[in-house]
Order: sequence, then structure tokens, then C-alpha cells
Amino acid sequence: MSLVLAPDVTAQADTPQPVAIVIHGGAGTILPENITDEQEQAYRTALRTALETGHDVLTDGGSSIDAVVAALQTMEDSPLFNAGKGAVFTSENTVELDASIMDGHTLNAGALTGVKHIKNPIGLARLIMEESEHVMMAGTGAEDFARAHEVSFVENEYFYTERRRRQAEEARSSNDRDDARDADADGIPDYDKLGTVGAVALDQDGDLAAGTTTGGTTNKRFGRVGDSPIIGAGTYADNATCGVSATGHGEYFIRAAVAHEISARMEHGGMSVQEAARTVIMDELPQMEPDGGSGGVIAMDAQGNIAMPFNTPGMYRGYVGTDGTMVIRIYRAEDEE
Amino acid sequence: MSLVLAPDVTAQADTPQPVAIVIHGGAGTILPENITDEQEQAYRTALRTALETGHDVLTDGGSSIDAVVAALQTMEDSPLFNAGKGAVFTSENTVELDASIMDGHTLNAGALTGVKHIKNPIGLARLIMEESEHVMMAGTGAEDFARAHEVSFVENEYFYTERRRRQAEEARSSNDRDDARDADADGIPDYDKLGTVGAVALDQDGDLAAGTTTGGTTNKRFGRVGDSPIIGAGTYADNATCGVSATGHGEYFIRAAVAHEISARMEHGGMSVQEAARTVIMDELPQMEPDGGSGGVIAMDAQGNIAMPFNTPGMYRGYVGTDGTMVIRIYRAEDEE
Repeated sequence: MSLVLAPDVTAQADTPQPVAIVIHGGAGTILPENITDEQEQAYRTALRTALETGHDVLTDGGSSIDAVVAALQTMEDSPLFNAGKGAVFTSENTVELDASIMDGHTLNAGALTGVKHIKNPIGLARLIMEESEHVMMAGTGAEDFARAHEVSFVENEYFYTERRRRQAEEARSSNDRDDARDADADGIPDYDKLGTVGAVALDQDGDLAAGTTTGGTTNKRFGRVGDSPIIGAGTYADNATCGVSATGHGEYFIRAAVAHEISARMEHGGMSVQEAARTVIMDELPQMEPDGGSGGVIAMDAQGNIAMPFNTPGMYRGYVGTDGTMVIRIYRAEDEE
Repeated sequence: MSLVLAPDVTAQADTPQPVAIVIHGGAGTILPENITDEQEQAYRTALRTALETGHDVLTDGGSSIDAVVAALQTMEDSPLFNAGKGAVFTSENTVELDASIMDGHTLNAGALTGVKHIKNPIGLARLIMEESEHVMMAGTGAEDFARAHEVSFVENEYFYTERRRRQAEEARSSNDRDDARDADADGIPDYDKLGTVGAVALDQDGDLAAGTTTGGTTNKRFGRVGDSPIIGAGTYADNATCGVSATGHGEYFIRAAVAHEISARMEHGGMSVQEAARTVIMDELPQMEPDGGSGGVIAMDAQGNIAMPFNTPGMYRGYVGTDGTMVIRIYRAEDEE
């Protein structure tokens, strides 16, 4: 945690700082042989739309919070990702959504878990951060709060897609999930189970923000809460270090406090954002008992340095750097091009 | 996070390691003038009971997880603390409970939020850690999981005490809570609003565990989730660093990831447990916007070194150290005796 708030850069310089944004659309067994050309093209287009939407906000002088919300809402509205419209089914054939957001300038944060009727959970996370005295709200309570504000409510059916219904049915017809510590034990390719989305943005004032939004895991039950709505696990932002959004096997990410651990390795260990993110994702998580924590993160520091490490075969990801260059990647091999 | 699990000390030495336990019963405006002699004696007796219960488990060869659960269940069963039987009321005149637990040897963890019918939430947190593939469960889902296990269910009325009902009524008759960022704005002395309980134990195998259990804040609404059930905020344990349980203004503790931050300052910053805990509670939290984060923590490392810093006038606290000495304190001045 930063002891001192970052200086207000706009007060020091007339020229705005260079802006940047990085996003992910989930990590998992994403391999060329598992995806058709049409599917791949659809993902690349959706990633581009999210990046362009967020980057436009930043170049227009919007805040990093504005940009994170704008980018993630396009991904929540897409049926491709496990968030909003494309979210996975629970064991009760409903959709329950989690999200969180954090402001690196103020260390304010907002989060929610288990909402069923909010079209864009990341927008509600922002409202909780800005318009309530709380950081986190759960279930119908979070929806009660939303009712007093301008939030789009939808029927739970709005989120139902045939693809996700089929996945849930396949999961139920497979072996007992109680024993399913192995990500593949339920027979669903995990590129279809994962798909949490996240964004980290750096605005003209030099402020970082990070956000994450998800439907959780296919066929989830018992009100399971993953890392996405947990500040410090799935999301963290501090101008003094970095902004982080995670995706992966959430239980491991909570136990390792992944997002805050990356920030802490920068602050107390003197690491760069790339070194800190790589160490946590590639070295620490795989060694955790019993099976290792699979997944990845996006992270960016206040100078716009970006890291996108993942220990799965692929991660939907992309960024627009401070030089304006846009990069969109899905497979691991692309990082070596 | 530790990269390597702590060595199994029992395999190296025939003599068991010295054991220790530290507990808290909440931090706040606890001053001699606010408490009658009878009340003070009742708190000291309840703290002693919890310490003796937990310490007996440890000297009998029980695990640190066993000891944390045993100690905290006595506090959940007491009407004095804001956990279990003595928990505060929500805005809807119900009681909703949160708890979490973490094993410093395996980094396994269990947590729950918003349960209404579980007599001992800390025991359910342990079941979630040990008997499910998840770390965190919310609301009725957590209770559905509990039904498949040996857990004591109670009517919500079991938790109702006249003292807490009066506090909730006073809170409602005071000014609008929406504007009540100030802890005193609702007219309730905050020694009565706080009262979260927690424990950290070190067992004969040299393993640490930490747990926290609470009713949250008086008159809470919107399914508010505080820091107590958040791994990394209210609770963390890692044999390589320390075990931590927090109590205080939960929103600040989440934003600063207090429990994990103390661990990270030891691991990456080379601090002792006392230095790390003191820095976070006395230096970092008070500087946070807008009002500073009030509260405290208990923390212990794997050598049995104990820290109990708090930035409020008092904190119900106590420990039995590795030398077997029991200490019980309420007010700040006692630390200077």
C-alpha cells in the first residue's frame, strides 16, 4: 500500500501523460486446434472493440476508472466471454455474477458477488465504490443498493445462452463435481469454463485503475465466491505499484492473494511489474498444493509498463501501449514472435 | 506467499515445539469510563476461557486449526462479542454472520459470508476449507453446503440479544447512515459496534493458523461484506511469515489488504512480525482517505513472537506465549505497564 497518494500530475504539467490500457478475456486451454478460424476472429474482434472503447475514453481525457468500466462493459455485453451476457450457468441453471474495481489513486474499491439481475456488474462495482460507504456487497443486498441508482436491471434469462446451457448440462452428466479438483474432471474443456474478463488502465493524470468481472465457474453451487470480486485476489490497484486483474482457478488466487502479492513484491521487494507478475504466476502459483494454481494476470505500472503472464496454454489478451500501438494475442506462441 | 512448505518439524525432532495462542475480541473506543467493573470482569473472564480452551488443545497435541476453532467457538457462544450469539443486528433485524480461517502450513483457507442459521460460523469455515473444493461461500449456498455435514443449525432468533436490538434501534433513530462515514455518526459508541473476534495459534508441529468471526456492523444493509471473511484482508496465515486476524473498520482493511500486507512486509521487506504489524496498523491505516482506518490486529510468527497493535483507544486481547505465560489486556495503558 502506498503511504502517500500519488501527486496530481495535471497540477504539475500542462501536457497530459501518455495513456495505456490492457485487457484479458480469460486464460485456459486455448489452443489453435480447439478453436475454429471464425471463433478466433470473433474473439480478436471483441478484444479490439474493448481496447478501442477503453482507449478512446482515455484519449478523450476520461479517467482510468471510466476506461476500465467502458472496456469491460463491451465484454460483458458480448456472448463470447464468461461475464455478463455470456456468463456460465450455476448448478441451479441460473447465472450469478461477480465483479470488482479499484482506483489506484485513492485506493477506493467496490465489489459485489452473486447478483442475478444486473446487466453490467462492473458498473455496479463502480457505484458501490463511489456511492456507498462499503467496499463489498453480496446477493440481493447488492441489488437492493443498485435499485436506488441508475442501473440496468434485466431478467436472469437475459444471460442465458445455448452454449453455456450445453456446458452446464455436460458438467452435470459427468462425474461428481465433489471430486473434481482437477479442472478437466467434469469433461468441459477449460477454455470454455474460464473466460473471466478484466482491464487495467492508465489515464492522462497518471492514475491507474483495475477491474474484473465474471460469471464464475460452470455448474458452481453453494454460493461459491471466486477471486474476481475479492480485492487483493482478483483485482488490485495502487499508483505506487501497479494495477492488476486476474483470471484462473480462483481458489488458488485467493489463497495466494495474487493481485496484492504482485503489488507487494514491487513495493517491498523492489521488483518491476513484469518481474513481480511473472514470479507470482509462473513460479509461485504452479507450486501450490494440491494441483497448482492455473491462470494468468494482466498488470501495468504507472509508467505504462505492461505484463501479461499466464501459466495455461493461452489467454485472451491485448493492450494499447503508451506509444499507441495495439497488440492482441490469444496463444502462447504469439509472445515469442 | 511461501514457495516451499514449512518442514515437518515432528519428523526432525522428537520434542514437540513450544505452543502459543493469541486472541482478540474487537477494537474500538474501549475506555475504563465506558465500562463498569462487572462488564470488564466479564470480558476478562471470557478472554481467559477462550485462551485456556485453545491452549489446552495445543498442549494436548492438537493442531493450530483445532485450537483456533476451539477458542473462537467459546467467543461465538458468548453474548459479549460481536460473533455468533452476541452478533449485531442488520437493518432488517436479522443477524448475518461472516467467518474465515487459514492454515499456514498448506495455505488452504475457508470463508463464508451472510449465513443466518449456523451456530458456529468458524466451524463451517473450517469445513469449507477441508471438505469442499472452494475457499469461499455466500449466504444460503453456504448453508446448503453445511446441511450435508455435521453442523449445528439454529433459528436466527438464537442470536438475538436485547443489548444488540437496542443498539440497532438507536442506530436507526439517528441520522441517515448513508452519510455516516464517521464511526460515531450513528450515535452508537463504537466499542459496542465492534467486537469481531479472532485467534492465531502455533502448534507442536510448528504450524500456524488464523481465524476470524463476526456479525459485521450494526444496522448493516445491502449484504455488506467486511474484511473478516476476506482471505488477505481480515485473515491470513503462512508458516513462512505469520498468522494474522484483524478487527476494525473493515472497508479500510480490505482496501489495504491488511492481513496479507503484514505477511508481505515480513517476506519481501524483511520486517519482524512486530515491525510489520505495527507499521500497517499505526502508520499506514491512519493515513488512508478519507478518515483513516481504525482497528487493530493480532499476529504471530512461527517462532511464537506476538504482536497486538491497535490504533483505537482499546482492544480486547490476550495471549499465552511459548513460555506458558498468560496475558489479558483491554486498555492501551496496559501495554505500558
